[in-house]
Amino acid sequence: MRIPILQLDRILLVSIQVDLTDNDAMQFQSDLVERVAAIEALGVAIDITALDVVDSYMARVINDTANMVRLLGAEVVICGIQPFVALTLIEMGRGLLGADCAFNLGQALEMLKGRIAKRGDTRFVGDEDV
Amino acid sequence: MRIPILQLDRILLVSIQVDLTDNDAMQFQSDLVERVAAIEALGVAIDITALDVVDSYMARVINDTANMVRLLGAEVVICGIQPFVALTLIEMGRGLLGADCAFNLGQALEMLKGRIAKRGDTRFVGDEDV
Repeated sequence: MRIPILQLDRILLVSIQVDLTDNDAMQFQSDLVERVAAIEALGVAIDITALDVVDSYMARVINDTANMVRLLGAEVVICGIQPFVALTLIEMGRGLLGADCAFNLGQALEMLKGRIAKRGDTRFVGDEDV
Repeated sequence: MRIPILQLDRILLVSIQVDLTDNDAMQFQSDLVERVAAIEALGVAIDITALDVVDSYMARVINDTANMVRLLGAEVVICGIQPFVALTLIEMGRGLLGADCAFNLGQALEMLKGRIAKRGDTRFVGDEDV
């Protein structure tokens, strides 16, 4: 299955609901970077609220995806990490390094808006109150 | 596949990306009404940007879903109807009656926020600027 990518002005929202196979992950990453490039997205929120378990493979996929998006020049916030997931991620010795985290999608959007505002590129953001 | 339901404070976002089978549609509708009830959602945005074709079955599913959500007491806005889809829906004699439409997800959220504000129930909305 393909992971839906929602667009809110120049911010993209993705929600990962299930463990991804290798193919799913590659499809997701290419869909996302294409979409970021196509709309020149300013930020991406990756919501993993629905994941009760994140193994080291999924952690790497999420981390890699965040880094790809950042290379394109967009801000990334990961949100919805479950308490048990946070616990196991650290115990496995793998944090979701390199990306900031927020409690939920609402807070992730606020965080992205704040960072985008700091950049000064508010051409499409200010008016619409993303 | 299950359709992901994203939560932004007390507004839910769903993006329908593919034609649904009977089972998918029932699963989607039960997932959505359960989620609306669970968080006492104030609004739901149904994004169909990804659908290039909407046949009469899909139109009915979307319309029924919107009506279910409304029965629970939440506002509904459908967004992202493609120009060609709008054309064929009217030619088929089936509009997405009963639900308001918005150009994109950003505008749908604004519309929902406006309606929710009018209701006066801003307990969870005001502070967070949903």
